[in-house]
Amino acid sequence: MIKASVLGATGYAGAELIRLLSQHPDVELVHLTSHSVAGSELSDMYKNLINADIPTLSQYNVSTITQDSDVIFTSLPHGASKEVIPELFESGKVVIDLSGDYRYDDAKVYQQWYGQEHSSPYLLKQSVYGLPELHKDKISKSRLIGNPGCYTTCGILPLAPLVGSGLISTDGIIIDAKSGATGAGRAPSTGLHFCEVDENIKAYNLAKHRHTSEIEQELSNVAGKEIVLSFSPHLLPSKRGILSTIYATPVEGISKDDVYECINSFYAGHPFVNVMKDGLPEVKHVNGSNCCNIGFVLDTRVNRLILVSVLDNLIKGAAGQAIQNMNIVFGLNETTGLKMLPYYL
Amino acid sequence: MIKASVLGATGYAGAELIRLLSQHPDVELVHLTSHSVAGSELSDMYKNLINADIPTLSQYNVSTITQDSDVIFTSLPHGASKEVIPELFESGKVVIDLSGDYRYDDAKVYQQWYGQEHSSPYLLKQSVYGLPELHKDKISKSRLIGNPGCYTTCGILPLAPLVGSGLISTDGIIIDAKSGATGAGRAPSTGLHFCEVDENIKAYNLAKHRHTSEIEQELSNVAGKEIVLSFSPHLLPSKRGILSTIYATPVEGISKDDVYECINSFYAGHPFVNVMKDGLPEVKHVNGSNCCNIGFVLDTRVNRLILVSVLDNLIKGAAGQAIQNMNIVFGLNETTGLKMLPYYL
Amino acid sequence: MIKASVLGATGYAGAELIRLLSQHPDVELVHLTSHSVAGSELSDMYKNLINADIPTLSQYNVSTITQDSDVIFTSLPHGASKEVIPELFESGKVVIDLSGDYRYDDAKVYQQWYGQEHSSPYLLKQSVYGLPELHKDKISKSRLIGNPGCYTTCGILPLAPLVGSGLISTDGIIIDAKSGATGAGRAPSTGLHFCEVDENIKAYNLAKHRHTSEIEQELSNVAGKEIVLSFSPHLLPSKRGILSTIYATPVEGISKDDVYECINSFYAGHPFVNVMKDGLPEVKHVNGSNCCNIGFVLDTRVNRLILVSVLDNLIKGAAGQAIQNMNIVFGLNETTGLKMLPYYL
Amino acid sequence: MIKASVLGATGYAGAELIRLLSQHPDVELVHLTSHSVAGSELSDMYKNLINADIPTLSQYNVSTITQDSDVIFTSLPHGASKEVIPELFESGKVVIDLSGDYRYDDAKVYQQWYGQEHSSPYLLKQSVYGLPELHKDKISKSRLIGNPGCYTTCGILPLAPLVGSGLISTDGIIIDAKSGATGAGRAPSTGLHFCEVDENIKAYNLAKHRHTSEIEQELSNVAGKEIVLSFSPHLLPSKRGILSTIYATPVEGISKDDVYECINSFYAGHPFVNVMKDGLPEVKHVNGSNCCNIGFVLDTRVNRLILVSVLDNLIKGAAGQAIQNMNIVFGLNETTGLKMLPYYL
Repeated sequence: MIKASVLGATGYAGAELIRLLSQHPDVELVHLTSHSVAGSELSDMYKNLINADIPTLSQYNVSTITQDSDVIFTSLPHGASKEVIPELFESGKVVIDLSGDYRYDDAKVYQQWYGQEHSSPYLLKQSVYGLPELHKDKISKSRLIGNPGCYTTCGILPLAPLVGSGLISTDGIIIDAKSGATGAGRAPSTGLHFCEVDENIKAYNLAKHRHTSEIEQELSNVAGKEIVLSFSPHLLPSKRGILSTIYATPVEGISKDDVYECINSFYAGHPFVNVMKDGLPEVKHVNGSNCCNIGFVLDTRVNRLILVSVLDNLIKGAAGQAIQNMNIVFGLNETTGLKMLPYYL
Repeated sequence: MIKASVLGATGYAGAELIRLLSQHPDVELVHLTSHSVAGSELSDMYKNLINADIPTLSQYNVSTITQDSDVIFTSLPHGASKEVIPELFESGKVVIDLSGDYRYDDAKVYQQWYGQEHSSPYLLKQSVYGLPELHKDKISKSRLIGNPGCYTTCGILPLAPLVGSGLISTDGIIIDAKSGATGAGRAPSTGLHFCEVDENIKAYNLAKHRHTSEIEQELSNVAGKEIVLSFSPHLLPSKRGILSTIYATPVEGISKDDVYECINSFYAGHPFVNVMKDGLPEVKHVNGSNCCNIGFVLDTRVNRLILVSVLDNLIKGAAGQAIQNMNIVFGLNETTGLKMLPYYL
Repeated sequence: MIKASVLGATGYAGAELIRLLSQHPDVELVHLTSHSVAGSELSDMYKNLINADIPTLSQYNVSTITQDSDVIFTSLPHGASKEVIPELFESGKVVIDLSGDYRYDDAKVYQQWYGQEHSSPYLLKQSVYGLPELHKDKISKSRLIGNPGCYTTCGILPLAPLVGSGLISTDGIIIDAKSGATGAGRAPSTGLHFCEVDENIKAYNLAKHRHTSEIEQELSNVAGKEIVLSFSPHLLPSKRGILSTIYATPVEGISKDDVYECINSFYAGHPFVNVMKDGLPEVKHVNGSNCCNIGFVLDTRVNRLILVSVLDNLIKGAAGQAIQNMNIVFGLNETTGLKMLPYYL
Repeated sequence: MIKASVLGATGYAGAELIRLLSQHPDVELVHLTSHSVAGSELSDMYKNLINADIPTLSQYNVSTITQDSDVIFTSLPHGASKEVIPELFESGKVVIDLSGDYRYDDAKVYQQWYGQEHSSPYLLKQSVYGLPELHKDKISKSRLIGNPGCYTTCGILPLAPLVGSGLISTDGIIIDAKSGATGAGRAPSTGLHFCEVDENIKAYNLAKHRHTSEIEQELSNVAGKEIVLSFSPHLLPSKRGILSTIYATPVEGISKDDVYECINSFYAGHPFVNVMKDGLPEVKHVNGSNCCNIGFVLDTRVNRLILVSVLDNLIKGAAGQAIQNMNIVFGLNETTGLKMLPYYL
């Protein structure tokens, strides 16, 4: 059994991670930490967990945690992770961080988009960007994984094969993303009040959302040249799921089959990416699962390729992907504990 | 023009009141107060009001407000109203209070259900319970009106004719009420986070919700004897509207026609109550309007009368009713500024 | 491996059943039938199933199905089940019927509430009411199971211990139930159009919903005397989950502990019923799981016991319960294939 | 009083039109037609209208209608309008058509996008595209108005000033639009079932939605050269409102102020368009009103202008706009009967 601990257990991503880990056949949960409600049960807050066999919430204690755990998941706010990860990493244990703190190759990019200096830039050389469909080998050899965000996974997966193969121009890419409200986390605010979100839709952080920089980093690496792009997030009146509508300029003469083959062959052997030759994916096709589904339309009238990708932001966009990374690091089958089908209804 | 001011402009009930008052043909808004954001525009917060001709938010100042206003609406939290109303009332102006502070005949009942002593119990003799369908005459002669809450209006209106006429037993009445989330107000909390309310339903404050006492007071007055009852509120995954399903024991031998005639004749001449002989009301039949619709089923198999009533909690359950009361006090037609049809979609 | 077939695969309950069966460790799906779309894949319609290993939809053929299957689930409309079940039952295979057709002890009650004669009343003697928490032994020995409906399970489970023990009066019970729209099935109609359900709530079929008769049958059997009661269904603006608020008159002198002990001990050893000593259950505590959670408030002021029960109507109220029944019949652990935790978000 | 009739009264746009017309101070409704339910009351179907003073539904009769009406609104399915409009137009009365049938300058474009020949192409010379902010003068002199669709109004209004002034390139424009489900009309279908729309989002008709051609026609006319663009509609889990996120390439050197001035000055004197210098519009800022709000972000990092526009698809995108057109034709103030503020909550 892999002994696992979770720091920041009470957020939406943390609670989802614990729900999934508690059902994972090869995992034993040893410590769940919470600063604010240590001593209570996570199931007091998340009553779906009353029958789960999980430890009581405790205060973070670095020596206990590193001694008892094989893997430590940090599901802390951006900026807070980098305060604890150096000491966790030093212990020699595997660390999978769900924040943005260890997703960057370059501390300057982090500083530019997160507005704070990175306190452990030396660790960025050790950390791997935890998108298994792009970096499975590196992940399998790493002990520090920067688990990608929801918007980024949903943006990178459909585009990587195409920018890598040169089927689309690397200029002028636009990602118009629509997300359910769990993506914004559990902390209450007026903007997340039911009556503000329900029956509404809004765009936010246009031209300045942090995830832009992650997507640009990864796609630039795949393309072998710098890519800048537009990323436009929107808040939907729903809980889970992201749908990204992506606009790109195809190179001359490519066909629908070319696009399909490019993406589909890229993800051969990757169990969580489903590519649709016809039809378009919807969030209800993936919610509840670790899948990312990708469809597309090639509009020759205006010479544009429109990609549509969907995933469950709490699973493939956070907790499920973290478990997928753990599976890889520990030599398990990538799908262990992640086989649940989407629930549709 | 009636010069009107609103204290507590930024809550959901306050903002709805201002939206309606700004469209009222005989009203001029003079002061809107807010403790936290005085100096800013209400339309910064409620962008639906950008084209409304309304004053800038200001700090509460008793002499300015009482000098400039004919009527003062207080849309403050329960308990806060009673701190300012004595001085407002002393000015001789009309005060319409949307909180629970002046809805009681007896300060002891207030203390029992609100858990605090009433600081101006002498004013309870001056105040009128502002349910126009029951107390229109008194309201027309009053200067201090305790505007009823949403649950209470939805519970009292269908029951008052029946307990008054003796068609139902005064024992064993149950009100099972389901409300949209605007009823809980604008202050953010985990329980009102979109992701907690959406796709959920919960019962809350069973057997101890404050509105129980208001309903009991009014129905007891109508019946001429003490009525105690069960009131069970539920939070719906929707914004507006209350539906109450009410269970009562009919006296022997009454017919469907008896029930219909009793309720319908009681509300003859009352423009905002619609009684359905057949079919049942739904919240979408009234949302956006000042109406309360009432339907019923007489179940002879189990000897039970089931009433269903609906209203828009922000309008007939708060802001619209306050304007209806103002219309009555100032001698206008009761429906002035309140003729908008429900929007259904 | 248990070879299982599903008749009526394309409805919401059928599709949920197949989703769960395809993940059951001891089940192999052999035939899925659909009258209207035989020859196509279920995953064309339910794209959450694209990675599920399930057979192509086929036309119903009694000899193929009975030859190849150990258990046959019939998820057909009420009335349609009884046209095929006699021939399925004759084959000696296990039949689990999700319709109302084989839930009754007495064909006359069926006829009265379903408005049609029962064509195989002799089979009602063979069939068992498939509520495992009440009839586990009988189920284990039966080959024809009338799988209870969602409203009924949610109504019977909280009440059975209390009427059985005499802690509440058998007179005057009221079940006020609120259900998500999946309970109404997949067939499109104006009443189920998104714009009609969203931001609305309505009561329907008051005093005449068919499930009333099922609840009365089962509770009367437990109580050993005839019980008639009020059952009031409401349609919520949500997809899944039922919450029932139940009103009963407690016998004199009982305490909160008495109520808790009564219900909790009744369900000792029943893994899917959770009884809460404090707090009240919400649908998000159970959605996605096979659990039914029960809480209560004893209101001594008005001498009333208010029970609140919740379940996922597609799982404990349909597909999950059917699998639980199958597990019992085939001697598996009751929870096999049904261990998924509720998803909360 | 203007005597008005509505053909196709029972659809969502028709019912909304009647709701608004019944509250219009200068309009008297004379005939409301319905093929399927003539003889019944519209308020049987739309119970929000029980207090509205409106005629009983009747069968379409050309001579009665043209004799009795000053203006005839046709709210029929696309294709059906053109079967009746020639005879209505011949009568000399004003006809305002809410379908797509008379929105085109060129019958060939209609045929290409609607897949059917136009039976009265000669009338396209008489008809005016009823977008008052672009064609007020022509509308005031016309008797046949092709009232624009919801998506088109939301796409044309933000772009027209910019393509007209040359501040953006006419190449590469993308409109990513998100709409509530009322836009799809009232006819039930699986795709509009509550359980299919709720908690979901999907793109549909990518690269082939009919509204593309309308937007291209109008923007090409403004620009004085042919514009082709991408229009991508999405279905939201909400009832009302459209939000369009629009991507365009700004010409070199323009500033935020340039963009604001361009749009804002274009709509000077147009009461229903609100341009935001800072911040972005949300659908709840306009729902319930006839307004279209426009905001934008100029992203110099990637040289892209992102516009965001919102409107209520049933009002400014259908019924309200039709009334605005009627007001213009009959010489009333454009805002008569259309002054309702958005409801926000």
